[in-house]
Amino acid sequence: MMQVTKITDMRRKSFADMPCPIARSLDIVGEWWTLLIIRDALAGASRFEDFRKSGIADNILSTRLDFLVHEGVLERRAYQAHPPRSEYVLTDKGHELLPVVAALGMWGLRWTKGGGEPPRFLHRRCGSEVEATFRCPTCSEAVHPSEIQVLRPQAAAERRLATFEPGV
Amino acid sequence: MMQVTKITDMRRKSFADMPCPIARSLDIVGEWWTLLIIRDALAGASRFEDFRKSGIADNILSTRLDFLVHEGVLERRAYQAHPPRSEYVLTDKGHELLPVVAALGMWGLRWTKGGGEPPRFLHRRCGSEVEATFRCPTCSEAVHPSEIQVLRPQAAAERRLATFEPGV
Repeated sequence: MMQVTKITDMRRKSFADMPCPIARSLDIVGEWWTLLIIRDALAGASRFEDFRKSGIADNILSTRLDFLVHEGVLERRAYQAHPPRSEYVLTDKGHELLPVVAALGMWGLRWTKGGGEPPRFLHRRCGSEVEATFRCPTCSEAVHPSEIQVLRPQAAAERRLATFEPGV
Repeated sequence: MMQVTKITDMRRKSFADMPCPIARSLDIVGEWWTLLIIRDALAGASRFEDFRKSGIADNILSTRLDFLVHEGVLERRAYQAHPPRSEYVLTDKGHELLPVVAALGMWGLRWTKGGGEPPRFLHRRCGSEVEATFRCPTCSEAVHPSEIQVLRPQAAAERRLATFEPGV
């Protein structure tokens, strides 16, 4: 298997062993550019030239693509032999980051200022824009974030594990 | 107004002026520890000692809290005068990051390995666990991420703006 330097190793201890799945997710996608690469892949980008359009520097893009392939978020596929060229396709693991990207987009649209149209999330079958919601199965209704209580049973366990001094 | 060094300024150009709201969101929360601070705040953490439990170093925590107050995600409130002590409470802007944190948690639970129980998202009124879903208003049904097409109308505009060389 190809050796890939984990980006995370370059500047902080890993979150990969934390008991919280949110922390473990951030170990993979919690990096400035990574979710923009996923955003572009979700919107159809697959070749190096496609991903460059967001303004990411080539060396960073190259490292991030390798990392995401290593983590099973993207799959590398050869599309040309001479010269050799690969494209990067989302795996199921990668495609299921769509709710993360959508949630960031909806928050940014509401709480940040800026030009440009937002990305649109369409139901393939009918072309309608889908709505991201929380639903309560008991009350059979949509639930606003302010009506949701978050419980973290593992906070105590995490404290015991957290003996490292992370870098900035 | 208090001057706060934007963390983003320390190591890369800002995403704040990008036309895509996903990029603008990442300008605020796209940083290793920031979403874990939000996670803990959503679960009830408000004092410095609460947030330290995740293992974040004090100097980083302090900078991040100042930054999130500056961005209007947290509000600082004095709870003791001698010696002066403040707590940090989520604003509406901060509370509405819950879908981002929930989406990361659900992805991490499915696609990463690790111990510990996941955070639980409960409907305050009835205590049931809420479900994060996409719904199609036309078809009146839940839509899986694989059935969603993402359209990015602003990709071309972004390319024109992207003249900077971001740092790692």
